[in-house]
Amino acid sequence: MKINENYLNLKESYLFATVNRKAREFQASHPDKKVIKLGIGDVTIPLCTAVTEAMHKAVDEMATKEHFHGYGPEQGYDFLKEAIQSYYAKRNTSLELDEIFISDGAKSDVGNILDIFAQDNVVLIPDPVYPVYVDTNVMAGREVKFMDANASNGFLAMPDPAVHADIIYLCSPNNPTGAVYNKEQLKAWVDYANANDAVILFDAAYEVFVADEAMPRSIFEIEGAKQCAIEFCSFSKTAGFTGTRCGYTVVPMDLVRGGESLNKLWLRRQTTKFNGVPYVVQRGAEAVFTEEGQKQIHEAIAYYKENAKIIAEALDELGIWYTGGINSPYIWLQCPNGMGSWEFFDFLLEQANVVGTPGAGFGNNGEGFFRLTAFGDRDNTKEAVERIKAALKK
Amino acid sequence: MKINENYLNLKESYLFATVNRKAREFQASHPDKKVIKLGIGDVTIPLCTAVTEAMHKAVDEMATKEHFHGYGPEQGYDFLKEAIQSYYAKRNTSLELDEIFISDGAKSDVGNILDIFAQDNVVLIPDPVYPVYVDTNVMAGREVKFMDANASNGFLAMPDPAVHADIIYLCSPNNPTGAVYNKEQLKAWVDYANANDAVILFDAAYEVFVADEAMPRSIFEIEGAKQCAIEFCSFSKTAGFTGTRCGYTVVPMDLVRGGESLNKLWLRRQTTKFNGVPYVVQRGAEAVFTEEGQKQIHEAIAYYKENAKIIAEALDELGIWYTGGINSPYIWLQCPNGMGSWEFFDFLLEQANVVGTPGAGFGNNGEGFFRLTAFGDRDNTKEAVERIKAALKK
Repeated sequence: MKINENYLNLKESYLFATVNRKAREFQASHPDKKVIKLGIGDVTIPLCTAVTEAMHKAVDEMATKEHFHGYGPEQGYDFLKEAIQSYYAKRNTSLELDEIFISDGAKSDVGNILDIFAQDNVVLIPDPVYPVYVDTNVMAGREVKFMDANASNGFLAMPDPAVHADIIYLCSPNNPTGAVYNKEQLKAWVDYANANDAVILFDAAYEVFVADEAMPRSIFEIEGAKQCAIEFCSFSKTAGFTGTRCGYTVVPMDLVRGGESLNKLWLRRQTTKFNGVPYVVQRGAEAVFTEEGQKQIHEAIAYYKENAKIIAEALDELGIWYTGGINSPYIWLQCPNGMGSWEFFDFLLEQANVVGTPGAGFGNNGEGFFRLTAFGDRDNTKEAVERIKAALKK
Repeated sequence: MKINENYLNLKESYLFATVNRKAREFQASHPDKKVIKLGIGDVTIPLCTAVTEAMHKAVDEMATKEHFHGYGPEQGYDFLKEAIQSYYAKRNTSLELDEIFISDGAKSDVGNILDIFAQDNVVLIPDPVYPVYVDTNVMAGREVKFMDANASNGFLAMPDPAVHADIIYLCSPNNPTGAVYNKEQLKAWVDYANANDAVILFDAAYEVFVADEAMPRSIFEIEGAKQCAIEFCSFSKTAGFTGTRCGYTVVPMDLVRGGESLNKLWLRRQTTKFNGVPYVVQRGAEAVFTEEGQKQIHEAIAYYKENAKIIAEALDELGIWYTGGINSPYIWLQCPNGMGSWEFFDFLLEQANVVGTPGAGFGNNGEGFFRLTAFGDRDNTKEAVERIKAALKK
C-alpha cells in the first residue's frame, strides 16, 4: 500500500504550538503574573438564548417517536436553507435553495471542495493567509502561487493580468489581517476569474462584522460572481458556533467549468462522503435568523467590536499602523520600533504579559506584523491594552 | 479550471431513487392501500433518555460563559474517547486514546480516509457492497477489483492468494447481506493483508447487533490486525444517531506503511480538514456508554432483533434461503420461484404492498436477491410478513 506522499511535503504547523509553549513556559516561571490571551480566534460569549431554546426543543423532538429525525438530506434541511435564502435576499442577493449546502463548518468545506477539481490546476493564494488553504492543496499535490498582500496594498492583493490562475482564494474580511475588499476591488477579481476561466473560493466567515453598508458581505453582490465563485460561510464567529459546528457553502447553478455544473459535482461529493449536519444543530442555526436571534447575535458582535475599538484606539494613541478592527474582529498591526514578529511576541509576553499571534506564522509577508483579536473578555481586553501602552511608553 | 474528471466515471445511483419512485407511483394509483416500507436502513426508535438528558445538559452548558465550549480537539474530547476505550476494554481490546478519532459518522470517514492513500493502489471490494466504497474510489481514479460474495461462500468473500490488493474493504456484520465473519475468517484476511503490505478498511457500523459471544465485533480482536487495519464505527444504528451524527475511527499506532504512521497522517488530515463533532453531540454519545445508556440502547436493539426474528421465521416457513437477521439488522434473501431482484420487488409491491430493496442494486452478485430490514415498527413488520406469506402461498 502506498501512502499519499504529498503529505510528506506539508510543513509542520509550529505557529500555535510555539505560541502556546512560550505562554505556558512564561506562566510557569512567573506564577504570580496574570497572562492575558488576545491571540486565539475562538469566541468567548456563549450561545444566545434563541439558539439554545431551539436546540432544547429539537432534543425533545428527537426523544419522541412521532417527531424523531433520522437521516436528513445530506445538503441540509429546507427550513435552514430557506432562512439563509432570506438572509441573502435582505441584501438583494437571490439564491435558489439548491445552491445552498449546509456544512459542519467552513473549514471542512474549504478543504473538501478541492475533491471536485483536477490536480493540475494552478492555485493562487494570498500571503499572509489562513494556513488551511495552503495545506489542503499541498495534500493534493497542486502547484501553489502566492500573491503579495502587504502594507503597500493595504493587505488586499489585486489580480495581476500577467499571472494565470485556475483556483483563487479570497478571504474578506480577512483572517489574519482584518482587511476588507470593497465592491470595485471584488469586481476586478470577478472579471479576472471569468477572463481566466478560473474559480474564486470566497471565504466569507467574518461577513457579519462588516458594518459599512457600502462594503460587500457576499461575493454574490458583485455582477458576474455567480459565473465564477463559490462562497463559504460559517456560524462560528457569527453566532458563537465554534464548538457547535455549522456553516454553509453556496455553489451557484450558473457556475459551469469544462461543460460540467460544479453544483452537481459538489452535490455528488456531499451525498457520497457526508451525511449532513445534526438535526439539533440545524434547528439551532435556523434560530440565528429569527428576529430574536438576530438581535442577540448582534449584541455579541457589538461587544466584540467594542473590544476591537478599544485595541484600535490604543494603537492610534501609540502611532502604530494597523488594518482591520472596524469591519473585522482581527487587528493586524505593524510591530513597533522595527521589531520582528516573534521579537514583538516575546516583548509583549515579558513586558505586558499579553499573548498575541506573530504575523510571520501566516506567511512571508506577515514578518514584522502581529495579530490581536477582539474575541476576548472586555475587562481583560482593557487591561491588556493598558499594559501594552505602558510597556511601549517605557 | 479543470474539474476532477473521475467524477464523470461515476454511475448514477438509481437504486433508492427507483425504489422510491415505484413506491410513490403505486401508492398514487392505489390510494386505498397501506404500503409498508422494509427497505430503508434508517432507524425508527427515538434517542434514549440517557442521551437526550446528556444533550439537554450540554446545551445548558453552552448557554453559560463559565461552561461554554468553543473549538474542541479535532479528534474529539477525551471524555468520549475514554468511554470508547472502556467499551473496547470490556472485549479485551486495548486501545490508546490517540488511536481513537471521533467523527461525524462512519460514512464521512470511510470516504475521507482515502485522502491519505496514493492514487495508484489496487482496491479490493466485495460484491454486493455498500455503494460508497466504490464511488469514493472512482472519484479518486483508483483501480477497483471486485471479489465475489455469493450463496456459495455464504456472502463472505475470502482472500485469494493469487490476487494482490493494497486496500481491502470488509464490512461485518455486512450491509447489505447481514453475513458476519467469524474469527478464523477474519484472521485469514489479517494474514493476507500483512503478507501483501495491504490495509484493511473494516466497517463495524453494525457491531452492536452481534449477539454470539464467539463472533468478533472488532477486527482488533484478531491478532495482527493492529498492523494492518483501520476500523470505522458509528452510533447511527447502535444508538439511533442517524440524524444526530457521531461515529469513531480507530487507527492503530502500529499501522505503518512506507515508513509512515497512518495514525499521524490521519491526524494531519483531520486537523487540517475537519473541526470536530459538536460538543453537545459528543456528550450525547458519551451517555450511550453509561449503565443507563447501555441498558436503553440494548432495549432498542432487542426490539429490532425481534423484528428480524419475525421476518426470519416467515422465510423459514416459506422455505426461502437467507443470510443475516441473527447478528445483524439486515436479512438478505434469495428471491423465491427464480424471480429476479426487480421482478420480486414489483411482485411484493403489487401483491403484498411491501417495499424492500432489490439486491441487484448493490452489485452483480446481488441479482436474484433482496434485502429486508428490521428497523421498522413492530406492528408494520408483523403485518408485512403476513402479507408476504399470503402473497407467496397464493
